[in-house]
Amino acid sequence: MTKMIIGGAQIGGIQKAETREEVVARMMALMDQAHEKGVEFLTYPEMTLTTFFPRFYVEDRAEFDHWFETEMPNHATAPLFAKAKGYGMGFSFGYCELTPEGEHFNTSIIVSPEGEIVLKYRKTHLPGHAEYEPERSHQHLEKRYFLAGDTGFNVVRNQGVIMGLAICNDRRWPESWRVMGLQGVQLVTIGYNTPSQNNLSKDEGIERRVYHHELSVCAGAYQNSTYAVAVAKCGMEDGNHMFAGSIIVDPDGFVIARATGEGDELIVAEADFDKCAFGKSTVFNFEAHRRTEHYGLIVSQTGVKEPAQ
Amino acid sequence: MTKMIIGGAQIGGIQKAETREEVVARMMALMDQAHEKGVEFLTYPEMTLTTFFPRFYVEDRAEFDHWFETEMPNHATAPLFAKAKGYGMGFSFGYCELTPEGEHFNTSIIVSPEGEIVLKYRKTHLPGHAEYEPERSHQHLEKRYFLAGDTGFNVVRNQGVIMGLAICNDRRWPESWRVMGLQGVQLVTIGYNTPSQNNLSKDEGIERRVYHHELSVCAGAYQNSTYAVAVAKCGMEDGNHMFAGSIIVDPDGFVIARATGEGDELIVAEADFDKCAFGKSTVFNFEAHRRTEHYGLIVSQTGVKEPAQ
Repeated sequence: MTKMIIGGAQIGGIQKAETREEVVARMMALMDQAHEKGVEFLTYPEMTLTTFFPRFYVEDRAEFDHWFETEMPNHATAPLFAKAKGYGMGFSFGYCELTPEGEHFNTSIIVSPEGEIVLKYRKTHLPGHAEYEPERSHQHLEKRYFLAGDTGFNVVRNQGVIMGLAICNDRRWPESWRVMGLQGVQLVTIGYNTPSQNNLSKDEGIERRVYHHELSVCAGAYQNSTYAVAVAKCGMEDGNHMFAGSIIVDPDGFVIARATGEGDELIVAEADFDKCAFGKSTVFNFEAHRRTEHYGLIVSQTGVKEPAQ
Repeated sequence: MTKMIIGGAQIGGIQKAETREEVVARMMALMDQAHEKGVEFLTYPEMTLTTFFPRFYVEDRAEFDHWFETEMPNHATAPLFAKAKGYGMGFSFGYCELTPEGEHFNTSIIVSPEGEIVLKYRKTHLPGHAEYEPERSHQHLEKRYFLAGDTGFNVVRNQGVIMGLAICNDRRWPESWRVMGLQGVQLVTIGYNTPSQNNLSKDEGIERRVYHHELSVCAGAYQNSTYAVAVAKCGMEDGNHMFAGSIIVDPDGFVIARATGEGDELIVAEADFDKCAFGKSTVFNFEAHRRTEHYGLIVSQTGVKEPAQ
């Protein structure tokens, strides 16, 4: 029997001028609320510490190095780590990582209740583009500022639960979920920053985009019999709107908690991780039902190859 | 510009006593309706010609060979092929196939408007079990009566559209969709026979199961930017209830047509296959975004391997 109260700490927009310390103070206020509600594991968004700067273009990428962290924990985040350790709470959050080798990643970590980083993940599926593209209603330059992640989708046992990480666009790709599912994942923790408008289609506004978000998370959870927490940084940020829609989903693919606003907001649910076992041993018993001899293209081929005319 | 009116021919329960000829007459009545509505491609369910006999156990499997077709078209289905050819209509349907070598498959085919079988698919993901299991509220013996399919998920150009086939439980597996997506699929045609009750869980009744069905089809369509038609054989059949819920889904993952009853019923929608291109060239541009170096487990590992304790 592994029951745990889990939470998602949705964060409203973070403007360019806000300091890391100001953001961490907001994160800690949500952590205090979470502790009051008995939360034992808390998920924060992607790129929690800063504005979503890939909406801005700079010719010289190094000008944006100040959005990146060169160590973790660091001066600004140490109080967050200390507070969580004091509460005996595990947590995950995303930030931009600049390595000693000068590589840039969109990164997320899981921190144990003892304050140790027990899993680091670097975003695999970078959306958007690398150069300025004037036909877009706004820029989404993740492929400019980040390298595609080199970690893959690993999992870790933390607080008695098999946990994995995904970031934003990863949630739309069933491959992300399945690789973790094959490692028995019971809780997928996801942060995202998702613009409310498709920058190449005026027709795809917030309602369609929230639907796609929820469809992807619910399908991924159901098809791998895992809990999922998907948490937004959202609302108005430097004049751009990102949708909210933070959710907690059970291993049957149903939403069991949902944010109601677009600002800093805690969502909470009780997870009974034993409930993962039913799906994993019946309809999604992978050993009994998967037929890998017919899946080869998924790994051997990256893009589309249509049949001959 | 490839627009086409597509249809799904939902079929109400087929009782044990019904003959193939009686079933084909029902199929043809729906085909007449479809023709009146301008349908150019029509999808019928899985195992259209017979009752869903895997709910029954027989010790000697050969006793059930009479549920299988040894040739296609055959005497019973020839009038259906002829009618479709007369209308210039393409169609797909499922049946149980017994090969000259004595192998049994749960099979589906696509028939061109010229009356040729242009694609044959044998069901990959057989649900259920192979032996009588008294703890189940009903039996689901697909693994007893069928071999897992040996075809894999191929596609074919038919009527100017890249089409693929999946059968029932295949729709829950993102691998089915992705292998076809990697071949540029624009229309996935799916038939199903799905009991309204999970035979190992009293808590999982019709509402949850219809949700799982729709979640899987909508996610598969969205994540591969393809139309999908998913069509039930449903209602009461030999004292067992199967859910209806036939749907047509667009490449954005939205339901655009839906059955309202549980009997023989036609659903129709106009498909604009050019709409597949937007998703395939942006958020799901596989060549730009997929990272196959991190997907290896999907093919190299069948079952779950959990991390060490």
